[in-house]
Amino acid sequence: MRQIYILNGPNLNLLGTREPGIYGAQTLSDIEKLLRERAGDRAELVFRQSNHEGELVDWIQEAGENGAGIILNAGAYTHTSVAMRDAISGSMAETIEVHLSNVHARESFRHHSYLSAVCRGVIVGFGVKSYTLALEAFLLE
Amino acid sequence: MRQIYILNGPNLNLLGTREPGIYGAQTLSDIEKLLRERAGDRAELVFRQSNHEGELVDWIQEAGENGAGIILNAGAYTHTSVAMRDAISGSMAETIEVHLSNVHARESFRHHSYLSAVCRGVIVGFGVKSYTLALEAFLLE
Amino acid sequence: MRQIYILNGPNLNLLGTREPGIYGAQTLSDIEKLLRERAGDRAELVFRQSNHEGELVDWIQEAGENGAGIILNAGAYTHTSVAMRDAISGSMAETIEVHLSNVHARESFRHHSYLSAVCRGVIVGFGVKSYTLALEAFLLE
Amino acid sequence: MRQIYILNGPNLNLLGTREPGIYGAQTLSDIEKLLRERAGDRAELVFRQSNHEGELVDWIQEAGENGAGIILNAGAYTHTSVAMRDAISGSMAETIEVHLSNVHARESFRHHSYLSAVCRGVIVGFGVKSYTLALEAFLLE
Amino acid sequence: MRQIYILNGPNLNLLGTREPGIYGAQTLSDIEKLLRERAGDRAELVFRQSNHEGELVDWIQEAGENGAGIILNAGAYTHTSVAMRDAISGSMAETIEVHLSNVHARESFRHHSYLSAVCRGVIVGFGVKSYTLALEAFLLE
Amino acid sequence: MRQIYILNGPNLNLLGTREPGIYGAQTLSDIEKLLRERAGDRAELVFRQSNHEGELVDWIQEAGENGAGIILNAGAYTHTSVAMRDAISGSMAETIEVHLSNVHARESFRHHSYLSAVCRGVIVGFGVKSYTLALEAFLLE
Amino acid sequence: MRQIYILNGPNLNLLGTREPGIYGAQTLSDIEKLLRERAGDRAELVFRQSNHEGELVDWIQEAGENGAGIILNAGAYTHTSVAMRDAISGSMAETIEVHLSNVHARESFRHHSYLSAVCRGVIVGFGVKSYTLALEAFLLE
Amino acid sequence: MRQIYILNGPNLNLLGTREPGIYGAQTLSDIEKLLRERAGDRAELVFRQSNHEGELVDWIQEAGENGAGIILNAGAYTHTSVAMRDAISGSMAETIEVHLSNVHARESFRHHSYLSAVCRGVIVGFGVKSYTLALEAFLLE
Amino acid sequence: MRQIYILNGPNLNLLGTREPGIYGAQTLSDIEKLLRERAGDRAELVFRQSNHEGELVDWIQEAGENGAGIILNAGAYTHTSVAMRDAISGSMAETIEVHLSNVHARESFRHHSYLSAVCRGVIVGFGVKSYTLALEAFLLE
Amino acid sequence: MRQIYILNGPNLNLLGTREPGIYGAQTLSDIEKLLRERAGDRAELVFRQSNHEGELVDWIQEAGENGAGIILNAGAYTHTSVAMRDAISGSMAETIEVHLSNVHARESFRHHSYLSAVCRGVIVGFGVKSYTLALEAFLLE
Amino acid sequence: MRQIYILNGPNLNLLGTREPGIYGAQTLSDIEKLLRERAGDRAELVFRQSNHEGELVDWIQEAGENGAGIILNAGAYTHTSVAMRDAISGSMAETIEVHLSNVHARESFRHHSYLSAVCRGVIVGFGVKSYTLALEAFLLE
Amino acid sequence: MRQIYILNGPNLNLLGTREPGIYGAQTLSDIEKLLRERAGDRAELVFRQSNHEGELVDWIQEAGENGAGIILNAGAYTHTSVAMRDAISGSMAETIEVHLSNVHARESFRHHSYLSAVCRGVIVGFGVKSYTLALEAFLLE
Repeated sequence: MRQIYILNGPNLNLLGTREPGIYGAQTLSDIEKLLRERAGDRAELVFRQSNHEGELVDWIQEAGENGAGIILNAGAYTHTSVAMRDAISGSMAETIEVHLSNVHARESFRHHSYLSAVCRGVIVGFGVKSYTLALEAFLLE
Repeated sequence: MRQIYILNGPNLNLLGTREPGIYGAQTLSDIEKLLRERAGDRAELVFRQSNHEGELVDWIQEAGENGAGIILNAGAYTHTSVAMRDAISGSMAETIEVHLSNVHARESFRHHSYLSAVCRGVIVGFGVKSYTLALEAFLLE
Repeated sequence: MRQIYILNGPNLNLLGTREPGIYGAQTLSDIEKLLRERAGDRAELVFRQSNHEGELVDWIQEAGENGAGIILNAGAYTHTSVAMRDAISGSMAETIEVHLSNVHARESFRHHSYLSAVCRGVIVGFGVKSYTLALEAFLLE
Repeated sequence: MRQIYILNGPNLNLLGTREPGIYGAQTLSDIEKLLRERAGDRAELVFRQSNHEGELVDWIQEAGENGAGIILNAGAYTHTSVAMRDAISGSMAETIEVHLSNVHARESFRHHSYLSAVCRGVIVGFGVKSYTLALEAFLLE
Repeated sequence: MRQIYILNGPNLNLLGTREPGIYGAQTLSDIEKLLRERAGDRAELVFRQSNHEGELVDWIQEAGENGAGIILNAGAYTHTSVAMRDAISGSMAETIEVHLSNVHARESFRHHSYLSAVCRGVIVGFGVKSYTLALEAFLLE
Repeated sequence: MRQIYILNGPNLNLLGTREPGIYGAQTLSDIEKLLRERAGDRAELVFRQSNHEGELVDWIQEAGENGAGIILNAGAYTHTSVAMRDAISGSMAETIEVHLSNVHARESFRHHSYLSAVCRGVIVGFGVKSYTLALEAFLLE
Repeated sequence: MRQIYILNGPNLNLLGTREPGIYGAQTLSDIEKLLRERAGDRAELVFRQSNHEGELVDWIQEAGENGAGIILNAGAYTHTSVAMRDAISGSMAETIEVHLSNVHARESFRHHSYLSAVCRGVIVGFGVKSYTLALEAFLLE
Repeated sequence: MRQIYILNGPNLNLLGTREPGIYGAQTLSDIEKLLRERAGDRAELVFRQSNHEGELVDWIQEAGENGAGIILNAGAYTHTSVAMRDAISGSMAETIEVHLSNVHARESFRHHSYLSAVCRGVIVGFGVKSYTLALEAFLLE
Repeated sequence: MRQIYILNGPNLNLLGTREPGIYGAQTLSDIEKLLRERAGDRAELVFRQSNHEGELVDWIQEAGENGAGIILNAGAYTHTSVAMRDAISGSMAETIEVHLSNVHARESFRHHSYLSAVCRGVIVGFGVKSYTLALEAFLLE
Repeated sequence: MRQIYILNGPNLNLLGTREPGIYGAQTLSDIEKLLRERAGDRAELVFRQSNHEGELVDWIQEAGENGAGIILNAGAYTHTSVAMRDAISGSMAETIEVHLSNVHARESFRHHSYLSAVCRGVIVGFGVKSYTLALEAFLLE
Repeated sequence: MRQIYILNGPNLNLLGTREPGIYGAQTLSDIEKLLRERAGDRAELVFRQSNHEGELVDWIQEAGENGAGIILNAGAYTHTSVAMRDAISGSMAETIEVHLSNVHARESFRHHSYLSAVCRGVIVGFGVKSYTLALEAFLLE
Repeated sequence: MRQIYILNGPNLNLLGTREPGIYGAQTLSDIEKLLRERAGDRAELVFRQSNHEGELVDWIQEAGENGAGIILNAGAYTHTSVAMRDAISGSMAETIEVHLSNVHARESFRHHSYLSAVCRGVIVGFGVKSYTLALEAFLLE
């Protein structure tokens, strides 16, 4: 059974309370629950959140060592973290970048991602369904 | 039953023969067949391809008039067509932008899309599965 | 009696339905009717719309061959079409660029026009009256 | 009867003598006379010129207090004056930006206007007729 | 008793009427009164407003000759006036730059100030309290 | 009694030893003591410093949950942290950005702040007094 | 006998009438005749012109399917068409880019070509002889 | 006898007191006296200073009407005034741009002059001798 | 005996496994061993690695307090961390920046270092020998 | 009989040994021989190579004095030498710029040529045949 | 008696023949003769020209060793030579940069000089008189 | 015994006299002597300096033909010479780029090197020791 890390970056712990007009009303626990139900016994999910860039780097490396896939919502670090980019390419963990909101319709500094070029694919703008589609991208294979 | 237009831009008729290292070996007919099977009776698919920007604009408007959704692989026009952007926002057809290859890992002029900001979401880099995931994005609702 | 082509670019056929907050509620037919009434027998109007850049290039050339003037609302092609710029300077048709909305108050990519430098003049932001004023610009001479 | 300020910026007092190849042979008095004739009793015109940015700001405010419209040829200040932009948006006077020459066909620093985004409309390149058309834009309503 | 010039740039005379959503409902007289009360006999205030860049340059020089401090809300000239920058560094008057609104949350051309680098400090975004805090910055010493 | 977090970013623990020509001779403890004296029983101060971006994000969220205000000297993270920007807008804690030195008179990469646009106000260049003024900004209300 | 497509982009049908100072007095028929004479029975020439980007894309693909070479004067589309670039690299037709005028001595937007990087070679500035030299480039092999 | 206007821009009235390390210890009166002595009866000098851009525009026009030459130290307006550029080219007064300090060795925004392109020549960096050399440039003819 | 910190940034713990084509096959332990042997009793080495920017800031400060030198391979933080730059200049620890690979031959975002300007020197591209040479740079004095 | 200088810039003496994947296996002598054979008695060829920018400038001037044409492969100086550009326009020698490789498919700094705008034409990417075609361009006249 | 080097860069040997509309009809010998007459026994002139950047560097160093001043018309190297800039600052020879034509009214790449910032002064646009004025600048002291 | 060329670019002959605050007091002969002592019989050193770009290109090629390594301090040519870059990659001589001063702490145009990307490694900022370390880099192998 494939192991998949679902890693969430800074401020995603605020989900459900923070700017619901942009991010929706569901909390991170809601998302975890939803994904576990959907995955069923098709995948073993490791679900984590951190506000610390270094911790996210650690976890990406851990997933790589475990041979796991990664669904990565890096939040703000998407736009500033070369360290996470290097972790993805260095750990060789197959990674799918996801975003809840349509980052291309927001401030211009959110249009550039340091991560996309080293990810397998990118899914943007579907709210919680961005995670679901990423999970399907792994499991449909 | 929801109607979904699957619109393919310039050179996608070459699929399967053109640069298979980047785009894979499946033809556009293979993709159409795959999607029709997957959709089954959950959606009515309209599947088209054109090398003409104006024709793609026409079809986006047509989809809008029909109240249909759009899965749009605009190919090269992604990076140059303000006309298609305006067609999407003007026709108010819910549109999902898809790309077979990971455009963010290619030439820098492919990193910018005129379309993303007016689409509901964007799915990039999963090969043929980019279309499948977009279809699921419509049908999971 | 002077012949004047009134050429309308992509998505202007949606006028009256599309984003009325920006473009107003009048349709392209309303505009044609209005202009014909105003022109009366002072000018022969040729009124057309196309979503195809190439067709607009053809029509600009046709106007040039007829020695006609052009009122040109190029829509999105304003910002991307060198071909239409070359058609204007190549056909030597006296051309007035018009826009319904105030393009300078919208997205930054709408602030640049490839066409302005080869047009006689530019009229921006008066809604349907942009066309009327352009017609007067021709007829007041 | 509507009051309309016609405000002329720096060096427009040289009109008729200065670079006639670009600006034509008519003086500012000629323009004033022409506009007064055209306006007749349809509008009360206030016609002024200044080389001082601050004085133009004062007059824009004055027009705003009087509830008047403004036809503004800001000349060189078009490209450098945030103060006049703020005066327009602050005074809420409906303003039409005009230029005698086609600024888009001249030096690149003349392609950007700080004023356009807060004006109702812009009329460029018709020589003296730019003023006439602006007057019609007010009076046709 | 320390003399402090409070200099206000273009369009600040519109305060209280102009875009109250951004600038608040208090007039410039209200601010003068408030500051005089707060200063009491701790400072002698010279309170002025002008729409003319040159006049503001004159006053900065005057303050410098008097050995006075300056609280400067340069308004639009903040973003365009090298002359005022040179007046500040040339007159060696200790200057505090203030803004009512949060300029960093507005148009991008308002993010750069020619003045900040030669001022002692900058206070931005507190409405009328920006002035009060600047006064305290002088008097707390 | 209002709770106010005073959060200090990377290297501010070096204060008093590090580049005193730029930052002054007072230590962070000196500042804490000064502010506590000034606040008296008008506010409950929470005073912290961290070199870790993630920890600062955590504290901003904590302040937001407590309904507290924030005086934030983000140091170097001012110029690089989208995560802290998102924490401020996400936690909805009223935040005042402060800097000891005049960042606008230093290297050009210090002229841009990711934080300013989502803060209530910004106070720059007054040394330790930047903190004091920020405190007054909260307490004067 | 090698087949060679000679494809001409927008406004080249105006050749001989349009801006002869830049493009010379020969028409497109003159060029066709000249090339057919020169080719003799060394090559089979397919000579076409279109103002439509999509049609040019179609023809590039057709040449590729036929295993033909291409002499391509893309006119204005040189500077704006990613679709034609993709058609060249996708169809794998050996392509030589030609221009009549010296594009490097004209407006700066004509200095960049989307096509050059995927062409075998580029010949610029020799008037009609640009075509002749391109033909020789194919036939000298 | 040739008339020569020597026009001095903003803050040059501070000369001799302001930043003597950059501008030297001589006042503007000293310079006037020096130039009058040097000119003797070879030229009639008109010597003026203003902090007002508009007043400098007025004087440039006046010089043009008198058929006089201009020695222009525009100070800070060198870098921001399109109005003075237009006054020079519009009045057709032969103008020599001078600077006391070496502007190319100072802040980068001082490296660009709006005036140079329309002046006959530019003399930079010789302190008071910049004026003397400009005078010689006129009188050596 | 001089104390030297050898600080390694994010993902350098992957060394020997990660992209060996770029970084070589030696692990971080191999490097530590090699350097300890080379240093012998000429220097006391403190050898550390972290994926956390804040922890690296802490260690740079610690080295500064101990009067130690630093050999710093900041990895990805080289290109994004102003905090580490400030730590180096604030702690006044003499620092040598090293890189295993030739960063100038890789992606353009790796060509800029926030650290170089405040380091004593930079050694790039010699693989593990970059560390050895940095050690010699300290010990040769 | 027309005299034609064939001038070769820096490192072209390495031809045949240097990066044969890019430049081919023929030496400069091979090229000279080939061209002399082709020219026969139709032209007198002067064939030279230098690594010195100044020497190339000398030779361009010499060709100009002789009324000769120039085939110029300026190598690296293409991208950096304004002096050679001025030599071409100053000597009025008709010059054809050639490149062996397709410079537009290489590093971005090779996409700009200081020379093209003052040459009669440019031939890029045909290997040794670039020279042959340039020779034909001269002799076909 | 002061020694002054008058150094002339690439293509200035063409003077009098090259583009007389821009550079005038006098040859370099004419200029030398003129300057020697003017200098008389007030200065010892060393007058040289080279097309070689390295030779100009040599001569600047030689002037510096001799304690001589330099009048430098670097021609095209003005815009590209950091080596000459370093020679000027390294040799500490007092240098005046001159240009015959008004470089600011020509191509944009001629607006930037690598030399100006390390020269004492700059004289631009007076034709041969630029040299004369520079000579006076040395001798008037 | 390995042959190593130590090539020094423009103005390095001034070493010891020129700007000793930046470059130190040792002359180029001192450096040569130092390196010869250090190399002993481990390497045969060829030590040269030139102000001529072309001569440096010649020497790089010569080293390449001899199979020698190169220690290259290209001075100012570092930032402007594509010719030297091509010489390095074309001659395939293993090259180490060195700089005496920390170029990253100086003017911004010194931050970019055309050479680094084709060198094996780069050593910056250690004064004369930059050469010594480069020698060790060769000999430690």
